[in-house]
Amino acid sequence: MNRKGILAVVSGFSGAGKGTLMKLLTERYDNYSLSVSATTRSPREGEKDGRDYFFVTREEFSRMIRDDELLEYARYVDNYYGTPRKYVEGELEKGKDVILEIEIQGALSIKERYPDSLLIFVTPPSAKELKKRLTQRGTETEEIIRKRLKRAAEEAVGVENYDYILINDDLEEAVLRLHRLIQDQHMRVGRQLDFISDMRGQLADL
Amino acid sequence: MNRKGILAVVSGFSGAGKGTLMKLLTERYDNYSLSVSATTRSPREGEKDGRDYFFVTREEFSRMIRDDELLEYARYVDNYYGTPRKYVEGELEKGKDVILEIEIQGALSIKERYPDSLLIFVTPPSAKELKKRLTQRGTETEEIIRKRLKRAAEEAVGVENYDYILINDDLEEAVLRLHRLIQDQHMRVGRQLDFISDMRGQLADL
Repeated sequence: MNRKGILAVVSGFSGAGKGTLMKLLTERYDNYSLSVSATTRSPREGEKDGRDYFFVTREEFSRMIRDDELLEYARYVDNYYGTPRKYVEGELEKGKDVILEIEIQGALSIKERYPDSLLIFVTPPSAKELKKRLTQRGTETEEIIRKRLKRAAEEAVGVENYDYILINDDLEEAVLRLHRLIQDQHMRVGRQLDFISDMRGQLADL
Repeated sequence: MNRKGILAVVSGFSGAGKGTLMKLLTERYDNYSLSVSATTRSPREGEKDGRDYFFVTREEFSRMIRDDELLEYARYVDNYYGTPRKYVEGELEKGKDVILEIEIQGALSIKERYPDSLLIFVTPPSAKELKKRLTQRGTETEEIIRKRLKRAAEEAVGVENYDYILINDDLEEAVLRLHRLIQDQHMRVGRQLDFISDMRGQLADL
């Protein structure tokens, strides 16, 4: 049986609850590895190098691109964000299911490179709920929230190329569904061809 | 949201436990409709017309083919088996998830006609276990069991075009997994395009 891990990419509107989902998922099940992105932006208060991001210089980031050390990268506002390849491939080889939390542009590059990766887009049940969640955070001004909501519609461009839409209405339910969606991938025919071929061999030998 | 039902096709080795799986699935969850095949073969003892099969004459079967009343049909030994279209399409429209238990050849025709149908192949965990299950049934002679096992290897031809392999090791676990595999399809992006488009509309209106 093919025990190589699943590469799952999770994207979604800001305010959809991705962060909490990832936190609960990795706390509750021990078969997941969360990929840490490299970025050229400065650390915010409380962020730790190697845990939240790998904070690198622009020169280092350029070198990583040149040396094919990034699975994908994207520019967002004035900063670059990328997924270090070595960690992801190492964890997959070990049989870990690896989760990348990245935006749509990067996710679609991953799908091109790894056609059997799983793309999941997380969304709140409605725009009204999204607004409520962003407001409740209390970390942003009303002006920024308005901009975010305006941008959200654009953020969803390309989502029709994802595999699944996960509506995060009830958090507990959403964690379970996310877990199942990823675990079900182990049953995909493409991952079970060795099993089938073994089975045929056994049948012929009976 | 697209509430149209899922069309799930279940195939597998004889002895894989498909019958019991179907029985438990439809007993436990009320969103499933099990399609009943039409056949030209004679009813066996205990089989009931309309429940186990629709027993029809060869002439009637030919007419159904001609009038496009069958979603797929196949010849097996000297008899024909087919899936009546009207029932399946009616149930899907009602939002029911419809299950067809048919063999590989028919399943692949269904997939061609309905690309978003879900093809699941059920298998016991090993050839040894398959032999054990066929023997325990006690309904077949050793000669027939030997022939069945020989044929099983051929039965799996084309299975690489299925979506999922369900290993029926523990029956309870297998029923749950089958249920989840089918229900997860409701989250597929292709079924959620209306939701996404509504969401975009709502965001633009905020």
